Amino acid sequence: MRVEIWSDIACPWCYIGKARFEAGLAAFAQRESVEVVHRSFELDPAAPAATDVPVLDMLAAKYGVSRAQAEAMEARVAEAAAGEGLDYRSDRIHGNTFDLHRLLHLAHAHGVQDALLDALYRANFAEARPLADPAVLTEIAVAAGVPAEEAARVLADPEAYAQDVRADEREAAELGATGVPFFVIDRRYGISGGQPAEVFRQALERAHADGAVQVLAAEEAGVCGDDGCAVPGS
Amino acid sequence: MRVEIWSDIACPWCYIGKARFEAGLAAFAQRESVEVVHRSFELDPAAPAATDVPVLDMLAAKYGVSRAQAEAMEARVAEAAAGEGLDYRSDRIHGNTFDLHRLLHLAHAHGVQDALLDALYRANFAEARPLADPAVLTEIAVAAGVPAEEAARVLADPEAYAQDVRADEREAAELGATGVPFFVIDRRYGISGGQPAEVFRQALERAHADGAVQVLAAEEAGVCGDDGCAVPGS
Repeated sequence: MRVEIWSDIACPWCYIGKARFEAGLAAFAQRESVEVVHRSFELDPAAPAATDVPVLDMLAAKYGVSRAQAEAMEARVAEAAAGEGLDYRSDRIHGNTFDLHRLLHLAHAHGVQDALLDALYRANFAEARPLADPAVLTEIAVAAGVPAEEAARVLADPEAYAQDVRADEREAAELGATGVPFFVIDRRYGISGGQPAEVFRQALERAHADGAVQVLAAEEAGVCGDDGCAVPGS
Repeated sequence: MRVEIWSDIACPWCYIGKARFEAGLAAFAQRESVEVVHRSFELDPAAPAATDVPVLDMLAAKYGVSRAQAEAMEARVAEAAAGEGLDYRSDRIHGNTFDLHRLLHLAHAHGVQDALLDALYRANFAEARPLADPAVLTEIAVAAGVPAEEAARVLADPEAYAQDVRADEREAAELGATGVPFFVIDRRYGISGGQPAEVFRQALERAHADGAVQVLAAEEAGVCGDDGCAVPGS
């Protein structure tokens, strides 16, 4: 089985939802047969690349509320994060995540995508680190297992993995995702939002119970197996 | 949409079926939205790594037939290959394909998997090249776009990408594939064998008509979208 998770590093419910999904996966008996792939989604693709806008200011401006009201909204999200054992700081920076997604595609090629996503979430939400700084990003990527020279090369070339990020985003739209996190099991079932762990476990059970793919009846065709290669019509 | 194709470089119907699938894909209106991933399958995992056994001798021994009968079987496959414009030689060598599959996983990480698979099929079926020779393999991989030093490193380390090959093979069994080529569309539909192009086109149409994934109704959950992040129960 294969679970694809569309998310953004700037998305609090993606951070929390990842922990809840992993709890649901841990409770799923066939967890060893599940492959997880992270897909790119930008909540604010128009955000400037380098920024020092505090998230609380961005929220107050976006919703037209006071700074105190923005803090109250963040406090409710922080409470949900604490429920999953996750640190959550509201003094973090709001910025563009395109480069972070390009790095996650590089990390995928090295088999360390999940580790890098965890590290980016932690750097953003638990440590409020400035992710617009290429030196900070490179340090995080290397600690997650990405070769240093490749991380630097990808960060220096704005087109590296850019098509992969955009392809993920197109695919999210085609699948009907309007927000994140968005979880897709075997391209069959979709789950929107940071649901409780039990919802994920049940969805995995359901997809597993559906069994193998439906083999379309078609013409007798050439196929090779244990017994050799069958030639149709002979 | 995503099509996964399980195949083996030693499998004539995989060689022919790839061309037929590509003809069906070319006739599918939404072909731009289709991602193709090649998966590993070994028809003869017990074959010795280095071998100079001619395929015709292997076939005669496997089926307990005369060399002339083996040639007649091969002639029917060659005819099917010619129907797709593919060269096909029966004087090729039978050997182990595990290293070839490991290389295809490396090529996937570089975005040139399809080019390498085409090159390996051509080298085996059209040119009868000795694929057990690491120098030959490296040359083919490099021509397909794999960095030379990485190809050499992977070929020198028998564990490099070995788990990925085995994972593909486990997954084929889980999906119910007993032979190759085996095509899986969006983990929903399976197609066995080198079917005519029209069968592939129709299967792609059917999967496309099914539309987006089924979103499972679940609890109201935290989700972030264009309008910001919704906090459940607030």
